[in-house]
Amino acid sequence: MFKKSIAVIALALTSIGLQAQTKTPAYLDDAKPMKERVEDALKRMTTEEKIALIHAQSKFSSPGVPRLGIPEIWTTDGPHGIRTEVKWDEWDQAGWTNDSCIAFPALTALASTWNKEMSALYGKSIGEEARFRNKNILLGPGVNIYRSPLNGRNFEYMGEDPFLAGQMVVPYIKGVQANGVAACVKHFALNNQEGRRNDVNVVVDDRALYEIYLPAFKAAVQQGGAWAIMGSYNQYKGQQCCHNEFLLNDILKGEWGFDGVVVSDWGGVHNGMQAIKNGLDLEFGTWTDGLSAGRKNAYDNYYLAQPYLDKIKSGEVGTTELDDKVRRVLRLCLLTTMNKNRPYGSFGTEEHALAGRKIAEEGIVLLQNNNSLLPLNLTKIKKIAVIGENAIKAMTVGGGSSSLKAKYEVSPLDGIKKRVGNKAQVVYARGYVGDAKSDYNGVAFGADLTEKRTAEQLLAEAIKVAKDADVVIFVGGLNKSDYQDCEGYDRKELGLPYNQDKVVTELAKANKNIVFVNISGNAVAMPWVKQVPAIVQGWYLGTEAGNALASVLMGDVNPSGKLAFTFPAKLNDNGAHALGEFPGGDEVKYNEGLFVGYRWTEKQNITPLFPFGHGLSYTTFEYGKVTADKTSMAASDKITFSVKVKNTGKREGQEVVQLYIADFKSSLPRPVKELKGFEKVSLKAGEEKTVTFTINKTDLSFFDDKKHEWVAEPGDFEAVIGASSLNIKGKVQFVLK
Amino acid sequence: MFKKSIAVIALALTSIGLQAQTKTPAYLDDAKPMKERVEDALKRMTTEEKIALIHAQSKFSSPGVPRLGIPEIWTTDGPHGIRTEVKWDEWDQAGWTNDSCIAFPALTALASTWNKEMSALYGKSIGEEARFRNKNILLGPGVNIYRSPLNGRNFEYMGEDPFLAGQMVVPYIKGVQANGVAACVKHFALNNQEGRRNDVNVVVDDRALYEIYLPAFKAAVQQGGAWAIMGSYNQYKGQQCCHNEFLLNDILKGEWGFDGVVVSDWGGVHNGMQAIKNGLDLEFGTWTDGLSAGRKNAYDNYYLAQPYLDKIKSGEVGTTELDDKVRRVLRLCLLTTMNKNRPYGSFGTEEHALAGRKIAEEGIVLLQNNNSLLPLNLTKIKKIAVIGENAIKAMTVGGGSSSLKAKYEVSPLDGIKKRVGNKAQVVYARGYVGDAKSDYNGVAFGADLTEKRTAEQLLAEAIKVAKDADVVIFVGGLNKSDYQDCEGYDRKELGLPYNQDKVVTELAKANKNIVFVNISGNAVAMPWVKQVPAIVQGWYLGTEAGNALASVLMGDVNPSGKLAFTFPAKLNDNGAHALGEFPGGDEVKYNEGLFVGYRWTEKQNITPLFPFGHGLSYTTFEYGKVTADKTSMAASDKITFSVKVKNTGKREGQEVVQLYIADFKSSLPRPVKELKGFEKVSLKAGEEKTVTFTINKTDLSFFDDKKHEWVAEPGDFEAVIGASSLNIKGKVQFVLK
Repeated sequence: MFKKSIAVIALALTSIGLQAQTKTPAYLDDAKPMKERVEDALKRMTTEEKIALIHAQSKFSSPGVPRLGIPEIWTTDGPHGIRTEVKWDEWDQAGWTNDSCIAFPALTALASTWNKEMSALYGKSIGEEARFRNKNILLGPGVNIYRSPLNGRNFEYMGEDPFLAGQMVVPYIKGVQANGVAACVKHFALNNQEGRRNDVNVVVDDRALYEIYLPAFKAAVQQGGAWAIMGSYNQYKGQQCCHNEFLLNDILKGEWGFDGVVVSDWGGVHNGMQAIKNGLDLEFGTWTDGLSAGRKNAYDNYYLAQPYLDKIKSGEVGTTELDDKVRRVLRLCLLTTMNKNRPYGSFGTEEHALAGRKIAEEGIVLLQNNNSLLPLNLTKIKKIAVIGENAIKAMTVGGGSSSLKAKYEVSPLDGIKKRVGNKAQVVYARGYVGDAKSDYNGVAFGADLTEKRTAEQLLAEAIKVAKDADVVIFVGGLNKSDYQDCEGYDRKELGLPYNQDKVVTELAKANKNIVFVNISGNAVAMPWVKQVPAIVQGWYLGTEAGNALASVLMGDVNPSGKLAFTFPAKLNDNGAHALGEFPGGDEVKYNEGLFVGYRWTEKQNITPLFPFGHGLSYTTFEYGKVTADKTSMAASDKITFSVKVKNTGKREGQEVVQLYIADFKSSLPRPVKELKGFEKVSLKAGEEKTVTFTINKTDLSFFDDKKHEWVAEPGDFEAVIGASSLNIKGKVQFVLK
Repeated sequence: MFKKSIAVIALALTSIGLQAQTKTPAYLDDAKPMKERVEDALKRMTTEEKIALIHAQSKFSSPGVPRLGIPEIWTTDGPHGIRTEVKWDEWDQAGWTNDSCIAFPALTALASTWNKEMSALYGKSIGEEARFRNKNILLGPGVNIYRSPLNGRNFEYMGEDPFLAGQMVVPYIKGVQANGVAACVKHFALNNQEGRRNDVNVVVDDRALYEIYLPAFKAAVQQGGAWAIMGSYNQYKGQQCCHNEFLLNDILKGEWGFDGVVVSDWGGVHNGMQAIKNGLDLEFGTWTDGLSAGRKNAYDNYYLAQPYLDKIKSGEVGTTELDDKVRRVLRLCLLTTMNKNRPYGSFGTEEHALAGRKIAEEGIVLLQNNNSLLPLNLTKIKKIAVIGENAIKAMTVGGGSSSLKAKYEVSPLDGIKKRVGNKAQVVYARGYVGDAKSDYNGVAFGADLTEKRTAEQLLAEAIKVAKDADVVIFVGGLNKSDYQDCEGYDRKELGLPYNQDKVVTELAKANKNIVFVNISGNAVAMPWVKQVPAIVQGWYLGTEAGNALASVLMGDVNPSGKLAFTFPAKLNDNGAHALGEFPGGDEVKYNEGLFVGYRWTEKQNITPLFPFGHGLSYTTFEYGKVTADKTSMAASDKITFSVKVKNTGKREGQEVVQLYIADFKSSLPRPVKELKGFEKVSLKAGEEKTVTFTINKTDLSFFDDKKHEWVAEPGDFEAVIGASSLNIKGKVQFVLK
């Protein structure tokens, strides 16, 4: 109800007439500068409207300003596809039939392409899906650094290296935002585990913070131009990250100059005054208990709702922070819902499915291929045994908020069958049973997951099938059930679940021509690695999963993916676990500091199961001598390295040439080397290309925590060119003057 | 799933790259002409996409073309406000909290303003509400002619006169469509009763069809430029009107050149081949039984869905009709969802509430005011008795598909109390009980509708309250319960329900200062008319109902509404009932022909209870002599009539000056006179203005059913100026040469 006196009503009535067409207000005028439009809208808004704008009205929407025609803001879970519609104030699906999306490969797969064009394609495609479904903020991508292989949510992120993640996240953001849809980069920051995620206080030194955990976010903001960023659940310096003075005010909005919107993770806000003061702009998910007795609307009780208004009215706080939040949200509105030139998007299309397939095919990593078992030669093979539950299990569902209602999903078994056609016989055996009763994993292809056969019976059956086949493709790994790559639940061990190690070992005895396809978003232990000639890292590959996998297995596609994180041989080969702080308790100490991933194994001289940057091809590449265009550079200078790469095999292929920089001596400890460049180069058989990398002072710098600034110390450096972090092809030294 | 060969997939992949930015397709290019854009989109669509575009995917939406970025089309029930969100495939409310609309006055109230500016304001306002809620087709306004006072849905229409309805509907449509929202004028045609509405076959002569039942639709199409029209449920010439060769192909799209979209009423489609051939473009509501066993999606079985596709594939029908339907829907998309310049709308605003109040205040009709009882003089009155259930009952809910979830609704009692303040005492008594258990009317203000007192107790209590008061305001009438102004249920009698006649009679005995406020969308019998000095026709007035009513009762607003339909003294004074054909059986014969409303009473010399065009003011108007600018006119000529109107009372007021034309002699029977002009003029006390009307041959014409054309026969005519159809102020004769 409106509370106005009759006098005011009478006055207002005089302005109703249609004749009273005044000129377009500045905030609605595209021709006006953004800042003027924002200020114009701001000054027209009541305090109540400002408050309403900055918090949710439902599970995924906020109300805009209905009086001023500023549209509602609708968010959608990403980062792998557009989440199905849910009920207004419940997590249950709303039962719509227009929201079956294309499921794109998980971000680990994207990162493993080491191909920025694939990231651009991903962003463009998922952005189009979001736009068609009228979603204005896509809750993704995620760039939390892979600190431990047990983190349940690693599959949603882009690996262990800040440079790789930072390079790969930028085109994704730009692709999404070209659709007038905001990317909301998450989870800012230090959300590297699911255990105790809502309250764990992360203790990390500034060097690790700035050098490892923040660079991908910084790139997202400064190079990607992200319009939104999501606060994480955990604490840092004893403050929740959704309203964290240090991360949001000091670093994000201060040091980095972020002018976008800080969105809370759903349920991540815990303190009203901090939410007001410490940089949160848009509150979602705080109370999710629906409309309950005595409260007209649960959303009115959000920290940034009525309680905030009460504080303003009582004079406890002023409106400076409010206006800042509103300006940011208004700016986002003008870039999204009020951007008249945004395209209309498209949804569930073949083009998007094929984009997903292409990304999947480039992201699949050939880890091992002894005796050139792969690609399978269908002119010689008569019978293929496909074994393992993951060959028939839907992987677009499960895993938490990234779970999707996909338009369709091709299982590995179906993809293989379709590709093989009548060229060979394909037989299937289950081999083992996973979590049949998991909430998310009730969906399977062509099989009853609750069947009652014992593990022994399943294994015996699989061995029989394996013995009788020319080749065995075992499709196993994790499965997005709780504790198996899933939001909210870290893994309990590095090893494979459901006794798969035994199954694989037995199958390898039964048939030496065995391929292990690991479906996961995490490293797993492979104690049988020497018994299994071919190993493929398959990821969660989305809608076209089975087709993409079959393309690689059969050689239609030459694999070109490289690992975005280290596969340690055992858990204690990982820094976080070696130093005993994962997942911690009330707090978790990142004792390993900046020695994450390969930075740890290289420092400790540990040989990993598979190193960072590793990935094989069906062809071979020969690297020439690495050269530099100069032997020394000034701090204001650049230096360029070159290396010839030749395809010495018999078929076309792509190689990811990697540049690492080693600092021979520095005042603070540094990693043995760090990734500072990569280039995916496509070479026909026999073709040779020169790959060049140009770096500058920034690439030589480390974060001096005492000075609180980035420092490049003069001295000797080395450019290291590798086909992986371990497979070094050449080096060249240079001096920073 | 997509069914393409691997070769095609490989081909498609080449076009995925981001580099492949081709120029904007014509259908997405604003600069291109509409026709070119439509043809461009059409040629890109598959037959399956065309089929999908022309039928529903849910209760209120159709899917657009997700591949091409042609957005979904969302419809919303009108015509009095934006319907609350319902579940995907159920009528139940979805439980959203962002959809509480402003309820505008019912269309009978709008028609009674006789003010086209009010219609423009209505259209603009409800269009803004639709736009903000992202609704693309507003299912309204309705212009079915008021044939009988028993029609349950008359309240949604614009009265008995084709000229008045035609003049009033045009600004509404333009106002809505200025927002990039399509108006969908309904129900086309001859849907003049709710009884047997789904199958009754209307038998009507061509003269009545063309002169009475179609002109408002024609105006909507040709003057209003409506982008959509809704077929009605009933039959005409034995064909359902949603796929009626005569109405849709011959008249609407043929004679009138309609280039918009014919939308089916929900459940109005009954025959696939007719739906294909006879002009239906967009099918909604056909099967409303949800997703049932054996059918993947109930919507796939719509007549214009899979069955249509099957007919095309089998060669039973071609694609000419399909392409025509698709072109029309695409055109609507380009005007609505793909109109980049449409405004953003606004929702639930004070401005809209006040617009509704203004319309309500101008639509309320002062039917009788003996002894100048009204306006109530609060300097003299100490105690006001408000009596009657409708003083406390929500009227924005109920009545069928126009039922609303209003942001708020001011009841008559609350409006009066608020206006009176502490100037007098306001006491309330219920007086009678209506349909406490009606589905729609469980909502009431401040009273328990299920209370158990007997009718006698309620009446005794009301008499006691009335006796003790200075003035009695009885607020009664109908209430949108079944059979009391409600979709699906015609009224059973002209008389008031719930024994109100007895209550009013007794109250009038108890207190001679009694005002009867009739809340209804229909005429009611008033056997006690001589015992009740003041009678106000209040309509269903929407969100600001009580405030608008109080403004008129207390004299803040000088009433200026005029009846848009005749109040007959008894049912048999209405043509349809006098000739015995309402509601008919399998068919209903419109035996009265074109003699509907005042055309019947004037032909039969019947004095109505209150005539068409009647409405009093708190001031008085004096009319001067009516003059014409010539005594004869050629068929190609115009003629202008003038009359001076003076406000001879003591306060400002508005008068609706009405022009009727009488044809003295014609080859076919004609009404005594017919409305051909009206002008609402505002006059200060003592002020005089000259009102002019210019007409041409069209206004003198009748429809010659033998020739099937409009004919103006030379001869003597008379321009009749009145303050109502009965209260004639002057006449002037002229000759058509």
